[in-house]
Amino acid sequence: MAMPKSASSNIVVRVEMDREKVSFGTIATAIDEAGGDIVAVDVSGTGKNADIRDITVNITETNSKDLVTRILNKLPGVQVLQISDQTFLMHLGGKIEVTPKMTIKTRDDLSRVYTPGVANVCMAIHEDPASAHTLTIKRNTIAVVSDGTAVLGLGDIGPMAAMPVMEGKAMLFKQLAGVDAFPICLDTQDTEEIIATIKRIAPAFGGINLEDISSPRCFEIEQRLIDELDIPVFHDDQHGTAVVLLAGLYNAVKLAGKRLEDCKIVLCGIGAAGIACTKILLSAGATRIVGVDRDGALVRGQAYAHEAWQWYAEHTNPQMETGALSDVIAGADIFIGVSGPGVLKPSDIRKMAKDPIVFAMANPTPEIAPEEAEGLVRVMATGRSDYPNQINNVLCFPGLFRGVLDCRASRVTEEMKLAAAKAIASVVSEAELNEYYIIPSVFNPNVADRVKEAVIQAAYASGVARRRERGM
Amino acid sequence: MAMPKSASSNIVVRVEMDREKVSFGTIATAIDEAGGDIVAVDVSGTGKNADIRDITVNITETNSKDLVTRILNKLPGVQVLQISDQTFLMHLGGKIEVTPKMTIKTRDDLSRVYTPGVANVCMAIHEDPASAHTLTIKRNTIAVVSDGTAVLGLGDIGPMAAMPVMEGKAMLFKQLAGVDAFPICLDTQDTEEIIATIKRIAPAFGGINLEDISSPRCFEIEQRLIDELDIPVFHDDQHGTAVVLLAGLYNAVKLAGKRLEDCKIVLCGIGAAGIACTKILLSAGATRIVGVDRDGALVRGQAYAHEAWQWYAEHTNPQMETGALSDVIAGADIFIGVSGPGVLKPSDIRKMAKDPIVFAMANPTPEIAPEEAEGLVRVMATGRSDYPNQINNVLCFPGLFRGVLDCRASRVTEEMKLAAAKAIASVVSEAELNEYYIIPSVFNPNVADRVKEAVIQAAYASGVARRRERGM
Repeated sequence: MAMPKSASSNIVVRVEMDREKVSFGTIATAIDEAGGDIVAVDVSGTGKNADIRDITVNITETNSKDLVTRILNKLPGVQVLQISDQTFLMHLGGKIEVTPKMTIKTRDDLSRVYTPGVANVCMAIHEDPASAHTLTIKRNTIAVVSDGTAVLGLGDIGPMAAMPVMEGKAMLFKQLAGVDAFPICLDTQDTEEIIATIKRIAPAFGGINLEDISSPRCFEIEQRLIDELDIPVFHDDQHGTAVVLLAGLYNAVKLAGKRLEDCKIVLCGIGAAGIACTKILLSAGATRIVGVDRDGALVRGQAYAHEAWQWYAEHTNPQMETGALSDVIAGADIFIGVSGPGVLKPSDIRKMAKDPIVFAMANPTPEIAPEEAEGLVRVMATGRSDYPNQINNVLCFPGLFRGVLDCRASRVTEEMKLAAAKAIASVVSEAELNEYYIIPSVFNPNVADRVKEAVIQAAYASGVARRRERGM
Repeated sequence: MAMPKSASSNIVVRVEMDREKVSFGTIATAIDEAGGDIVAVDVSGTGKNADIRDITVNITETNSKDLVTRILNKLPGVQVLQISDQTFLMHLGGKIEVTPKMTIKTRDDLSRVYTPGVANVCMAIHEDPASAHTLTIKRNTIAVVSDGTAVLGLGDIGPMAAMPVMEGKAMLFKQLAGVDAFPICLDTQDTEEIIATIKRIAPAFGGINLEDISSPRCFEIEQRLIDELDIPVFHDDQHGTAVVLLAGLYNAVKLAGKRLEDCKIVLCGIGAAGIACTKILLSAGATRIVGVDRDGALVRGQAYAHEAWQWYAEHTNPQMETGALSDVIAGADIFIGVSGPGVLKPSDIRKMAKDPIVFAMANPTPEIAPEEAEGLVRVMATGRSDYPNQINNVLCFPGLFRGVLDCRASRVTEEMKLAAAKAIASVVSEAELNEYYIIPSVFNPNVADRVKEAVIQAAYASGVARRRERGM
C-alpha cells in the first residue's frame, strides 16, 4: 500500500539531564540535527544534580522519533526516559471519563441524589425491578466486555492491553449514538468464569457488547449469556461484521443486477466472523454458500474436529462441492474473505461468474490487494479505510445498541440484524450507488439513526421490545 | 426532629384518560381541588380512545402528591400511570454518563484512538503492564462495588435497587475530586463469588471502593481483596466512617482540653463501622476503649460467636469493665454511637466525665437527639445534615482516592487513614473551632485537596506509592 507521507506531528521527549555534564543547548542542537524542531520545554522534575525535562518536538519524518532518541542517548549525562507521539499523547490517562449529568450545587441537591432522598428511589426499584431501566444508568449504559484474547490482529495480549481498544469503542458508542459504554476487561480466559462474571455484573447494564474474545469460546459465552440474561448480548466481532458485510452485499448485488438468493457465494475463513457472516446470509435468503478453510471446501458427511465446522458443513454447500479455493471459486458470483493476506489470486477471480463481487476483509492485509483485483472485479470491498467500500463494524454497533436500549429489547433477534443491514445499505441512495460507493462512510451522520429506527421496528415485530410503544 | 415545611416543588403525573369518559377540564379541576397548580401538559401518547398525558403540577404541601393521585383515580375514565417528584425526575435515565475526553473529528483521529493506531498503545501495555496506569482509564478510575445487602438504612434490597446510591457516590467522586468512579452492583451475595468477580474485573481500575456490603462478609471480602489485588481496596462504610469520626474527635478533644490517649471511650454498636472506628482509635493512640453491644460490654475471657467480637474483646477494655451501657458509661469522656435510635439516655450522659463528648451517629435517628443532649454535653456530633457537626464519609472518600490514584498506591495503609483524619480536622482552623464547628462541611472546597495531599505523603512514607516522586 502507498502510505501517505506523514504530516508533521509533535512528540514529547522526556529526558533526565545531569546538569554538571550537559547543557540544554547541547541537547537542543542534537534535536535539531536529528531533524526535530523544539516547540516547548517543561521542567517536570528537578533534583540535586539532575533535571527531568519534557521537550515537545515537531517532526516531519516518521523515523525522526527514533533518530532523536538515538542521538540524545549518545550524549553524556543525558538519558531519554520516555518518548510519546501523538497517538500516545491522546491516550494519556485514558480516553473516556465518568461524569455527573448535573452538578450538586446545594444541600438540597445532595439530599436528592444521595442520602436521604435517594432511598425513595432505591425502594421504588426494590418494589419494581423493571423501573431500574428508567431510574438508573441501565437505561442508557452497556458494558463492552473482553478477555483480551483476540484483540485486533494482535491476538492474546491480555485484559489490560485490550483496554485502549475498548475505550476507543466506548468513545464511538457515545459520539455516534449517545450510548454510555463502559469497558470491562476480564482477568480470566475460562469460559465458565467469563459467563459467571458477566452475569454477576449485569444489574447495572442495559446490554452487553462482547468484544475480541477468541473462538470457539466466544460461541458458548455468547449463547449462554443470551439464554441466561434478560438484556441483549451481542458479540460484535461476529454479528457486527456480518451485518455490515450483508449491507455491502445488498448494494453490490443490486449493482451487478443479481439476486442474493441466486448467487453462488464462496466464503473463505470459517472462524467466528465467517460463521456469523454465513448465518446472516442464510437468514437473508442466500442458498448457495460454499465455505472454505485450510483443508478446502467444507462438505457434509466429513468428520470435523470443531462442532462449528460440523454445523457449517451440514447447513451449506448444497451441491457438495469439494476441493481447494481455486476449485470451488469457479462460477462464484461472490467471494467473501475473512481469512488472511493473499489467499485469493487474480487467476481465481478470472474463474468467477460475470461481474464478480469480492469482499476481501482480512485486516490489515486483504485476501487480494485492490490493485491486483482492479479490472477483474465488478465490486470490491475491504476492511480498510484507505480503499473505497470499507466494511467497518462502526456502521452497526452504535445504532444497534441505541435501538435496543430505546425499546428496552431483551435480546437481538435475527430480524433485528437483517433490519440493521438493510438500514445501513439504504443510506446509499440509488443515485449515489456505484462500484466505489456501496457502503456509507463511518462518519455519515445518518447511519446510526437509520439503524436505530430499523432495529426498534424489528424488535417490536420480533416481540422482544419491552417498552410500551408510544401511541399504544 | 422538626422537619422544615417543604418548599414548593413540581411533580409529574402521567395519566391515561379515556376521551369518551372524561375531559381534560375535569382533570384540571380535580388537580386544583387537591391543592395542585398545573404548570405544563404534554401528550406523551395517543391511541384510538385514550390519551396519555404528562401533567406537571406544582405542589406546596408534601401530602398533595398522594392527594392528587387519590382524587384523580376516583374520576371515571382516568388512571394515574405514574407520579414522579423532583427526586425521581433527577434520577431519570441515571445520574452519570460515560463521555469521551475528546471528539473524534477526522479519519486521522479515528485511526489514533481506534484501529489501527491504537494497536501501538495496546502493545506498549502488553510489554509493560505498569504503563496501563498511564495509558488507560486505570489512571483515574475506580469501581464502586456493592452487592446491595446493606444499603443505607434499608438493608438487603438487592443490586439493582442499590444502583442509585452508587451512582450518587460516583457523582461525588467526580465533582469533589475529579475521580472517575463507575458503579458495579453484583448479583451475588456469596463471599467467594464476590471476591472472584472483583478480581476478574480489576484490570480496568486503579482502585476499588467497597460499599454497603453487610457484615461479617465485608471483613473477609475486603481483607482477601487487599491481599490478592495490587490496587487499593477500601470498604468505605468501615474506614470512611472511621476516618471522619477520628477527624471530629481530634477537634472535639482539643476543645475539651483533653488528650485522646487519656480518654475513656465507650463505643456502642460493634458492627463493621464500630470495629473500624475502634481500630483507627487504637492506631491513633486511644487506650481506654470499652465496646458495648446488645449483651453489654465486651470483655476478654468471654466466648463470642463472631470472630470479630472475639478480636474486639481481646484488644479493648483493659480494665475489663462489665455491664450494660448505663454502667460502663460512668466516667467516660467520649461516647461513640454506631448503633440505633435512642440508645443513649440523658441520665447516661450525666454519669460521664466533665465536658462529655457525644458522637451519636446512628442514621437517620441518632442514639440521642441533640435537643435532649443539649446542656449536658460539651460537644455533640451526629450523622445528620440538619444538625451541626455532621460525620459524613463524603469528607473522606473523594480526597482519599484522589490521593491513592495520584501516587499510584498499591494499598491504603493505617498511616494513610490517620493522615486523612488529621487533614480533615485541620481544615477547621484554631480561630474557627468551636462546639458547633468541629468538622468542615461536605461542601468545603478545601477538604478533598487537603486529604489528597496528606494521603500522598503518607503513602510515600508507608512505601506503597508506586509513582516516582517528582523532584526525585
